[in-house]
Amino acid sequence: MLRYLTSGESHGKCMLTILEGMPSGVAIDERMVKGELTRRMLGYGRGKRMAIESDKVEILSGLRKGRTIGSPIAMMIRNIDSSMDRLQAVLNPRPGHADLTGALKYNFGDIRNVLERASARDTVSRVAVGAVSKILLAEFGIRIASHVVMIGGVEADTEGLTFGKTLALAERSPVRCADAAASKLMCDEIDKACEAGDTLGGIIEVIINGVPPGLGSYSQWDRRIDGTLARAILSIQAIKGVSFGLGFETAELAGSLVHDEIFYDRKKKCFYRKTNNAGGVEGGMTNGEDIVMRAVMKPIATLRKALSSANIRTKSPVRATVERADVCAVPAAAVIAEGVSAVEIANAMLEKFGGDSLGEMRRNYEGYIKQVRGF
Amino acid sequence: MLRYLTSGESHGKCMLTILEGMPSGVAIDERMVKGELTRRMLGYGRGKRMAIESDKVEILSGLRKGRTIGSPIAMMIRNIDSSMDRLQAVLNPRPGHADLTGALKYNFGDIRNVLERASARDTVSRVAVGAVSKILLAEFGIRIASHVVMIGGVEADTEGLTFGKTLALAERSPVRCADAAASKLMCDEIDKACEAGDTLGGIIEVIINGVPPGLGSYSQWDRRIDGTLARAILSIQAIKGVSFGLGFETAELAGSLVHDEIFYDRKKKCFYRKTNNAGGVEGGMTNGEDIVMRAVMKPIATLRKALSSANIRTKSPVRATVERADVCAVPAAAVIAEGVSAVEIANAMLEKFGGDSLGEMRRNYEGYIKQVRGF
Amino acid sequence: MLRYLTSGESHGKCMLTILEGMPSGVAIDERMVKGELTRRMLGYGRGKRMAIESDKVEILSGLRKGRTIGSPIAMMIRNIDSSMDRLQAVLNPRPGHADLTGALKYNFGDIRNVLERASARDTVSRVAVGAVSKILLAEFGIRIASHVVMIGGVEADTEGLTFGKTLALAERSPVRCADAAASKLMCDEIDKACEAGDTLGGIIEVIINGVPPGLGSYSQWDRRIDGTLARAILSIQAIKGVSFGLGFETAELAGSLVHDEIFYDRKKKCFYRKTNNAGGVEGGMTNGEDIVMRAVMKPIATLRKALSSANIRTKSPVRATVERADVCAVPAAAVIAEGVSAVEIANAMLEKFGGDSLGEMRRNYEGYIKQVRGF
Amino acid sequence: MLRYLTSGESHGKCMLTILEGMPSGVAIDERMVKGELTRRMLGYGRGKRMAIESDKVEILSGLRKGRTIGSPIAMMIRNIDSSMDRLQAVLNPRPGHADLTGALKYNFGDIRNVLERASARDTVSRVAVGAVSKILLAEFGIRIASHVVMIGGVEADTEGLTFGKTLALAERSPVRCADAAASKLMCDEIDKACEAGDTLGGIIEVIINGVPPGLGSYSQWDRRIDGTLARAILSIQAIKGVSFGLGFETAELAGSLVHDEIFYDRKKKCFYRKTNNAGGVEGGMTNGEDIVMRAVMKPIATLRKALSSANIRTKSPVRATVERADVCAVPAAAVIAEGVSAVEIANAMLEKFGGDSLGEMRRNYEGYIKQVRGF
Repeated sequence: MLRYLTSGESHGKCMLTILEGMPSGVAIDERMVKGELTRRMLGYGRGKRMAIESDKVEILSGLRKGRTIGSPIAMMIRNIDSSMDRLQAVLNPRPGHADLTGALKYNFGDIRNVLERASARDTVSRVAVGAVSKILLAEFGIRIASHVVMIGGVEADTEGLTFGKTLALAERSPVRCADAAASKLMCDEIDKACEAGDTLGGIIEVIINGVPPGLGSYSQWDRRIDGTLARAILSIQAIKGVSFGLGFETAELAGSLVHDEIFYDRKKKCFYRKTNNAGGVEGGMTNGEDIVMRAVMKPIATLRKALSSANIRTKSPVRATVERADVCAVPAAAVIAEGVSAVEIANAMLEKFGGDSLGEMRRNYEGYIKQVRGF
Repeated sequence: MLRYLTSGESHGKCMLTILEGMPSGVAIDERMVKGELTRRMLGYGRGKRMAIESDKVEILSGLRKGRTIGSPIAMMIRNIDSSMDRLQAVLNPRPGHADLTGALKYNFGDIRNVLERASARDTVSRVAVGAVSKILLAEFGIRIASHVVMIGGVEADTEGLTFGKTLALAERSPVRCADAAASKLMCDEIDKACEAGDTLGGIIEVIINGVPPGLGSYSQWDRRIDGTLARAILSIQAIKGVSFGLGFETAELAGSLVHDEIFYDRKKKCFYRKTNNAGGVEGGMTNGEDIVMRAVMKPIATLRKALSSANIRTKSPVRATVERADVCAVPAAAVIAEGVSAVEIANAMLEKFGGDSLGEMRRNYEGYIKQVRGF
Repeated sequence: MLRYLTSGESHGKCMLTILEGMPSGVAIDERMVKGELTRRMLGYGRGKRMAIESDKVEILSGLRKGRTIGSPIAMMIRNIDSSMDRLQAVLNPRPGHADLTGALKYNFGDIRNVLERASARDTVSRVAVGAVSKILLAEFGIRIASHVVMIGGVEADTEGLTFGKTLALAERSPVRCADAAASKLMCDEIDKACEAGDTLGGIIEVIINGVPPGLGSYSQWDRRIDGTLARAILSIQAIKGVSFGLGFETAELAGSLVHDEIFYDRKKKCFYRKTNNAGGVEGGMTNGEDIVMRAVMKPIATLRKALSSANIRTKSPVRATVERADVCAVPAAAVIAEGVSAVEIANAMLEKFGGDSLGEMRRNYEGYIKQVRGF
Repeated sequence: MLRYLTSGESHGKCMLTILEGMPSGVAIDERMVKGELTRRMLGYGRGKRMAIESDKVEILSGLRKGRTIGSPIAMMIRNIDSSMDRLQAVLNPRPGHADLTGALKYNFGDIRNVLERASARDTVSRVAVGAVSKILLAEFGIRIASHVVMIGGVEADTEGLTFGKTLALAERSPVRCADAAASKLMCDEIDKACEAGDTLGGIIEVIINGVPPGLGSYSQWDRRIDGTLARAILSIQAIKGVSFGLGFETAELAGSLVHDEIFYDRKKKCFYRKTNNAGGVEGGMTNGEDIVMRAVMKPIATLRKALSSANIRTKSPVRATVERADVCAVPAAAVIAEGVSAVEIANAMLEKFGGDSLGEMRRNYEGYIKQVRGF
């Protein structure tokens, strides 16, 4: 079983994570992890914060000679600005943030104690554990892509694109959008919002390719893979909804138009579908088709054109605090969602196939694939 | 901490659950639990299955003289038809169900072994634990309502309705819809689908009223209350998406139109909002406003007008198996979603306030409310 | 992963358990489970309670045609006397029991609310889940035995006995003691204690044979198999200590006399030891030798010759309540310890080998055994 | 709920831990944490390893201006020798260590991959989280002490010593033994073992003073505080047994001599005992008396006078590898046992009293204490 804890504050010394449960023998390419951190920082609409972040990961434990040894993997990303203790008190809570509730819950007279940890800065650690999980998944031919399907009301048209094509196009776009025309319009919307001192949200899609059928289970409610994935994605800052396959559109369609009919390919000796409206999950299990999830991100809650608030000491009306922030972080959220999904899928793989070494895990996996083929 | 496990098969002897972690001293009215089970069975569009189900709960442990004693609470709901062992083999997997993947995963030659447990029949146990959780929450003035906002493309208009009004109207509608006109149209759609041998899905809304600010936490990703609630709801059979507050619409709006500005009421000595676009959750915590969640249910996967499939033995093309089933179960899903949400909120209350007896929990709760008032 | 919850009160309707996580395809012989329940009830020194208990298990879910189907397994053992609600209040707490602390913790004016759940009656459920776990383990050649090595100061001499011989002799003894002479003396001690209105404790030994090397892990503190086993055994009522291999004697010996030297058998192609002072666990992992654990049970806390106490209402000095009870339950504790150990080993097997069906688990297991042989 | 993960290898860059769940507002004195690390390093019989360790803790996150802010607390202790990658392969497994089984489990051709993580070096992290937990417990008047009661067969006589006296005497002894005469004899035994190239184990005692009644629960087997504490202590390297109160001696005594009779003090308005044979735990709960636990540590498994082994490549008989090591680490184990117990008690306090800030937790605690007084 994979488990991980993260720690770290936005202006603390560093962001840290410990990932427990990786099998031994997996070669970890630190450049790949670094590459994922860089992907997280990109995106049209990111603010100054990104300029001062140039995240490098230090793997502090869990590897020997570049390979996992079954030990917990600790990863540290240093913060350049670690002035947390000296930063001045924040008293004007920002609507949409943890600010006010965090202060009430933990009984703080200074909101900085809240925002330092509640900050999306923590997602850098989640991308790091996601990167390591992706490396494991790659050993089993499982790949994860993401792209942006809406920003500020502009919708992308990506119908008919293959997994590979979607990924390639998204990587090339400044907003991770696989539709070049929409990509440009999205950038325009971001410019407009920026000028207005406003912010934008959007919708992302995560696609997981190459997953074997049978991860997760209907046996007990908390083992359903869609529930597990949803929790992981909804726990990313600013995400307000998640859906699988057709998602909310499925409410408008009759069953005969929704369910993915089943066929059998006698040559390849496997069952298959011609559609994937279920988004790769049926009965709380992966069904072997691509897992397709969408998530909606609300606009960033720190606005230059600050919203109304009330000072937590005086209780008087004020403008909310303005921290340095982005106009739009939807492309980053897509990368983060890849990462947290990777951890959940890796975990489900380990639960099903066991294995303390990569070799053992692979042997078990291959035995199952053969079983499924011969079903 | 509340924990629960459920067990039972659709045509087994009974459905069972053990709920661990309830404080002592809570009076459990069995009629209330029974009432919740009945609410789950109602709804225009339910099939014959409901006619043979007349669910009565037997509380097998955990109560003495009608009150909880800190022991685990076991609840049993008997099945009238318990012929599982004798029922004939199912070989033609239904698209949209766990059938095919379940057979591959567990290596079954008979799909009945899958569908007996994967069946939504299990939700009767989740409603039962939800009922007990609701009784606990009621001691703290927390109430949960649900209503149906879409079936088969028909959308309800419930803007401006209060919590109480929504609840009252929904209870009166055959499809739990608080908009009487839409309710009628939804029934029409169900009739049409029924005639066509088809099925319908829809969208439900769950509202939780009276929650104190500060349940859940941003401290660690898996403590965020929205993630926890989302997992609980997405683990209900056929649910394909979940969202909070404005949900997916938030992708089309600028931040200045989304975030709920903060005000302070000097008389009531509390912070408040005039809007609730966040759906009661900010920074992974309840903010004291109503929690508002929406979830989408796909159309029922068992169609009288059966879909294409492939026989798991012969691999030849066939029509999917037709089990006795409903045309639309969206109203039931709403009741189930109330129940599973209740468990998560009760758990978050216990995590924050501790307490082994209701008296202790209440004393701790009241101390916190006073702290918040005096903040 | 195996998980289980138990519920039920001593004079409630029944004792229940739900066991989640068993792979499919395991044939469950109900007579074997029943047999384990009977073994738990035997033992010289048991009181009237045992006469009225004639435990039969009803498997309420999780099986179809006698085999597991991956569903949770629910088991119910009915209580003959289910008069809990009507039984009179208990006010005089028994030293050594949960009575006083339970009343303080849960804020009860009647100790019966405590003793009904704190009672060792609950161990009947743990034996039932243990029986199912043993059936799974038997598929991998893993066997579990227990015997009593001390009662009331009388020590058994079982040096040099094989696993099989120990088991056979223990089953024949009225006190599960594999040393016939000591067995007789133990019975004498029990007779004496009975006459004196007193009670006796003792020491049990659990031996697990056929375990592969490598269950558990040193990677994280909470994954160590000795810690996991110790928790399971110490959570049996009245157990006050647990040890592995030489146990507390190891404090008196030099390292050169303690550690089990390593040899290699070129014919069998495996490493082996000539001694087993470690009790089969090194570095938090099974090392392939028999797991040998000892646990000490305190004398039963309900004495006919009642101890001094204080009434919880009047606070006046009183004699502690006398419930119907045994003089010595050490043989029963041995059987229970087998059961709870079986669950932990089964869980560790599932963690290492994964597998949703027995066939898949066995294939993975055999691949590992071959790997170890070829190391 | 408190959770923690540790990471780090013996010759890796550093030892790390993330502790999640601490309430806000607790002042953390880094010198206190440093002091605990120093206490762990002391003890007659420690080898060269200690000379190169001069452990300093760096708190990397979770504090602001010296106080907890509800965030996870990360602590790093750097290793002076971090040459892990370059160290030569280890091929001759040491009996009593994780060496052989670890290599089989994780499929390593070099035992160094095992011993780097299996090493007791990891306990430095557990002492660090223990130190933070102790600081929290001190806010509630809970103190933890430990002393050594046996080394190499020499037994200490500490009968009649108070908690404070035991602690004071133990701190002064080079082997943490509160009996000065025995302390000297223990040092002599260590000298002898050292000369002989041998090692020694022993028995430690941990005492926890000031615990309120009612931590832990009999409600579910895995909530029993003795099971939880036992797991924590048994997961310390080389610990082979753990017991409460009279421990294994209780097997020789009749019930009338074992159970702690109950009295009521009308002045102090509380129940009390004159004896503490139960070691402060009844029915899986703390009963308000001192928690008294003993644990046995086997002799260190790395002997200068190396034991027989077999080379993992050639399979030929060899002498086991000799790593730099101690002769006796029993005093260190005592300090570590304090630490891991502190975490479990702190966790049980948080479970019972909840609370996100120290103030809230204290208010809840005080309410309960008043309730118990007025019972």
